[in-house]
Amino acid sequence: MPERAVTSRLQLSGLCFLLQILTIVLFAVFVRYSPESSAELCSQQLNCSQRKLDLGFQHPRFRDGHLRALLGFGLLVAFLGRYGPGSMATSILTMAFGVQWAILIQGFLYFFLNGKIHVGAQSMVSADFCTAAILISAGAILGRVNPVQMLLLTLLGVTLFSLNEYILLSLMGVSDSGGSLTVHTFGAYFGLMVSRILHQSQMDERKEQQDVGPLSDVFAVVGTIYLWIFWPSFSSATTAHDNTEPWAPWAVLNTYFSLAASTLATFVLSPVLYEESTPRMVQIQDAALASTAVMGMPGEMLVTPFGALVAGFLAGLISLLGFRFLTPVLRSRLKIQDTCGVHNVHGLPGILGALLGTLLAALATADAYSGRGEEAGARVPAGGPGQPDGHRPGALAARRAAHHPAASRTRGWPRGSRPEAEGAEVSSGHAVPGKQSPPGGG
Amino acid sequence: MPERAVTSRLQLSGLCFLLQILTIVLFAVFVRYSPESSAELCSQQLNCSQRKLDLGFQHPRFRDGHLRALLGFGLLVAFLGRYGPGSMATSILTMAFGVQWAILIQGFLYFFLNGKIHVGAQSMVSADFCTAAILISAGAILGRVNPVQMLLLTLLGVTLFSLNEYILLSLMGVSDSGGSLTVHTFGAYFGLMVSRILHQSQMDERKEQQDVGPLSDVFAVVGTIYLWIFWPSFSSATTAHDNTEPWAPWAVLNTYFSLAASTLATFVLSPVLYEESTPRMVQIQDAALASTAVMGMPGEMLVTPFGALVAGFLAGLISLLGFRFLTPVLRSRLKIQDTCGVHNVHGLPGILGALLGTLLAALATADAYSGRGEEAGARVPAGGPGQPDGHRPGALAARRAAHHPAASRTRGWPRGSRPEAEGAEVSSGHAVPGKQSPPGGG
Amino acid sequence: MPERAVTSRLQLSGLCFLLQILTIVLFAVFVRYSPESSAELCSQQLNCSQRKLDLGFQHPRFRDGHLRALLGFGLLVAFLGRYGPGSMATSILTMAFGVQWAILIQGFLYFFLNGKIHVGAQSMVSADFCTAAILISAGAILGRVNPVQMLLLTLLGVTLFSLNEYILLSLMGVSDSGGSLTVHTFGAYFGLMVSRILHQSQMDERKEQQDVGPLSDVFAVVGTIYLWIFWPSFSSATTAHDNTEPWAPWAVLNTYFSLAASTLATFVLSPVLYEESTPRMVQIQDAALASTAVMGMPGEMLVTPFGALVAGFLAGLISLLGFRFLTPVLRSRLKIQDTCGVHNVHGLPGILGALLGTLLAALATADAYSGRGEEAGARVPAGGPGQPDGHRPGALAARRAAHHPAASRTRGWPRGSRPEAEGAEVSSGHAVPGKQSPPGGG
Repeated sequence: MPERAVTSRLQLSGLCFLLQILTIVLFAVFVRYSPESSAELCSQQLNCSQRKLDLGFQHPRFRDGHLRALLGFGLLVAFLGRYGPGSMATSILTMAFGVQWAILIQGFLYFFLNGKIHVGAQSMVSADFCTAAILISAGAILGRVNPVQMLLLTLLGVTLFSLNEYILLSLMGVSDSGGSLTVHTFGAYFGLMVSRILHQSQMDERKEQQDVGPLSDVFAVVGTIYLWIFWPSFSSATTAHDNTEPWAPWAVLNTYFSLAASTLATFVLSPVLYEESTPRMVQIQDAALASTAVMGMPGEMLVTPFGALVAGFLAGLISLLGFRFLTPVLRSRLKIQDTCGVHNVHGLPGILGALLGTLLAALATADAYSGRGEEAGARVPAGGPGQPDGHRPGALAARRAAHHPAASRTRGWPRGSRPEAEGAEVSSGHAVPGKQSPPGGG
Repeated sequence: MPERAVTSRLQLSGLCFLLQILTIVLFAVFVRYSPESSAELCSQQLNCSQRKLDLGFQHPRFRDGHLRALLGFGLLVAFLGRYGPGSMATSILTMAFGVQWAILIQGFLYFFLNGKIHVGAQSMVSADFCTAAILISAGAILGRVNPVQMLLLTLLGVTLFSLNEYILLSLMGVSDSGGSLTVHTFGAYFGLMVSRILHQSQMDERKEQQDVGPLSDVFAVVGTIYLWIFWPSFSSATTAHDNTEPWAPWAVLNTYFSLAASTLATFVLSPVLYEESTPRMVQIQDAALASTAVMGMPGEMLVTPFGALVAGFLAGLISLLGFRFLTPVLRSRLKIQDTCGVHNVHGLPGILGALLGTLLAALATADAYSGRGEEAGARVPAGGPGQPDGHRPGALAARRAAHHPAASRTRGWPRGSRPEAEGAEVSSGHAVPGKQSPPGGG
Repeated sequence: MPERAVTSRLQLSGLCFLLQILTIVLFAVFVRYSPESSAELCSQQLNCSQRKLDLGFQHPRFRDGHLRALLGFGLLVAFLGRYGPGSMATSILTMAFGVQWAILIQGFLYFFLNGKIHVGAQSMVSADFCTAAILISAGAILGRVNPVQMLLLTLLGVTLFSLNEYILLSLMGVSDSGGSLTVHTFGAYFGLMVSRILHQSQMDERKEQQDVGPLSDVFAVVGTIYLWIFWPSFSSATTAHDNTEPWAPWAVLNTYFSLAASTLATFVLSPVLYEESTPRMVQIQDAALASTAVMGMPGEMLVTPFGALVAGFLAGLISLLGFRFLTPVLRSRLKIQDTCGVHNVHGLPGILGALLGTLLAALATADAYSGRGEEAGARVPAGGPGQPDGHRPGALAARRAAHHPAASRTRGWPRGSRPEAEGAEVSSGHAVPGKQSPPGGG
């Protein structure tokens, strides 16, 4: 019916207009650039650890971190793009509105001071993560919602995500720097829940245009290469924003090994489960995504490379087994349709990652770290509950606040141990740095 | 006629050979790597501010800045790639020759000393910008020029661009770090002018192969993701090459908000103007490009996020309205064909950005900045005319020269305020850095 | 025959499973994260130069270097992806297993200490390079091997690559930072050798699916843009991991000029050799790849930009001439099929690059560098044989060890020369840094 189509088009146009005007007004009233993001002129009211955090972001690496968070997006959007060009446009709309809305909601939760939201690099990265979770949710219901419904879901999802993240990270003190729990698992199960609700309201019309020909392969190839190239750094971007912090390379290498193992897992299972000589690119990409989801939480805690290989291998297997056995069950029994299989790619591996992270955090005080002295103590993330942390701005504050003393120590320490590199600097004062003579002595 | 085809092929081959040999000879005679780009061994003849500039580029961030300038290219080429594979090859030829030629022309204007052009990182970025403008021009005439004509246009365009940039930035002292005026507006109107001239010489044969099927969508998707991922950092790369400079994060966040708002603008207007339920990816990409053009000049000056939202929203609207109403008028009345719609995507938003930038620069001495003390004074770009700046190497020198005192101050300042981070270093001398005791005193 | 297909599928699945389990076990037994990669807690047994090397990698730039090494991959995979989706999956399998295996083999050669392989950033980059060589080899035999054969070839190739690299770089002291010789040439000729062997065992069934329609063009376009964007930085990433080292920008600019010239070379030869008005994107990409291969070794040594233009132009010409005249000869006379033309794209340009690099290294002690004093001496790579270097971890150690004194000097030197930038720091001690007073004096 053309008239209904006209109405639906005008609805979309009107809603977008209203939401954008609303955001602009709210931004005009509440949002200001954080003084810290502009200069070191920190207003004295913002407490200290938050300031230190933001200073960390003024670091050259901030832009890279942000860039990688956005790359996460890009990937997700490409991943959704496999399901027809219409779904791609909807995904980008979700992203564009989700980011603005997340800045506002998370701003009120974390960055609100004296009646203004102080937006800086940190709030941008948090908003990116939030939007990534919403895009994962969108993967479950793609092809069965129109853009208007998707916008309303974004409104709801961003709010729920922020509350969930606030409870998990700030109130319970969970360390989840890569977002195994907050991003991947929340995104997947929020999407599945919405999918379940949608199922009842409108009967299954099966208009999914799954895997549209060669384009699907192109997107899968580009997506997989992106994952291999950018995700290792991405994982670590949210982990350690400071070059001198000790565990940064671990997260990179762990994610990398995990990706490699998940790819082999695809080649192990795919010929058995499906009657194909080589796996399709889409399967390889899904396994790679699963391995990044599993590395979200424990990526920075695994201290031996083979752990990452095992975790990635399991994630790849789980993802493929899920597609083969779990998705049909979900569809027929629980009446949950899962267009992109987010349950297999983000949900299950996210839970696996969270379990693994919790296990590692529990073990952390014990032997694996014990050989490394007090350095090790710092590396144990704030994994257990019961570390309330009132002023937490995003996923990083909890970890940062806990680690800061050690981090500043390692930051200060190498100077004495690298006299050959820092020689010129050393010789400009007259105290030998190794002796750490106090200012004024000499 | 096969004979004519053979002639045209040999013409292309011969012209490319001649131009490449010419460039090699000119490079051999005139171009040397700048001593500053190899080490701090600065020749005393090159004046001081230029040296400081180049030192800024030796910074780790140079490569990133360069990388982003190239990404701009990549995008433009992908953007042009929508119009058939032949146009893509021509674009890459334009890029490859344009960069070499721009190095020479801009070298003679800015980096010429003692009979040699001193090529460094700065000249590379300038050449990238110049070539980007030529690629924008190419967008207007694509499909109606052959590679030989395109090469000759590149020869002319690079020269005109360099002169225009020299007049605007060096003689008039305009601050245009993101190239709203020099790159986007110049590129668009130079292209349109050439398009008008071509119209008379050869009658409209309408051989445009616009938007070739699914490939067009793939390029639009990849291009849009690229814009979202890389452009925010790209804008700021040309703005502030120093991590400690105060306004770098602003430009990033402003561009980002601008992109988000322009996407919503597409969803507002597209269902009204065109009879489609969702906008096509190409429209979304065009709106995103428009929002980057509008952020070129004011990106670093906007001090409140909602301003970026408004500017991006307007740019998205303008771009779509232009495609709907202006392009047909241009074509029928003014006999200007505009293959890729560069007037809507680069021309109008570039002018809007330049107006906005001028307005902000005019307001800058007034209240918006007044609350920030002398720090703010530094942030006011050299927006007004009348700041001749003889030795300007590229778009940055004017700003750099003006800002340097403040920049060095902010660079020096944090040391005292971050004793916990710099402790080991501090304690190696015996003066407390907060007191800033002069060398030799203590 | 379906039964044979089932067997082949189960073979692949079983072999992948076995190899992955084997790798996990070997990783569990032997591989540990290097203490240096986790913190500066260097175990005293690891000798000094290795530690310095790893410290260099803890630098912010490590991640970028790694990222770029991976980008190299991405490119190669995209390059192989032109030959059908099946070949892409095989390439990714090769990559995923090759990296794990290279970590092990190279670990035993270079990073083995006290019964453990100490994995850090350096070993990852080495493994990336090794896998890149194997992927180049795969380019020669693509479409004629199944995944099982490819896995076995990876086992063999990684081992041979590591031995070859060990002999060239450690025992003979060749400087080959960009891998002209070790990566490009080795990869090409190993692939051609395997191709020759395969030819006899199974008669030419010509099932190559070359250049599959529009997808091939998309991949070529994306690949070319990637090369332009990332390769200049990539070349330099392996060259200089330290921002203060003098020649880093040279390698970037040299690679860039080389890319530009190779593109023009395509436009010069393609209309003459083939009856086409513009070159196909695939040819442009091949020329661009050839120009990166030729810049591998001499990229950091060329001190005048026109040298890079000439080298790139020659590489582009060689690549096209090779495709036109050499590939048919190889196929008919020597019975060597070369699916992707790796001989033209990697083999010949790699040899050209190695010759050029050797020539430059031989000239380096002479006039070209002589004007630059002792700084220049440092820039001469360890080009001649006879510098055994037992503890070499990867391609960098040889150069690093040789350059360190000069590098630390240039690192120390600028402090005195940039008082305006480092003022606050300088004034915190009371010796004027320019005078370089020794520790304890003042």
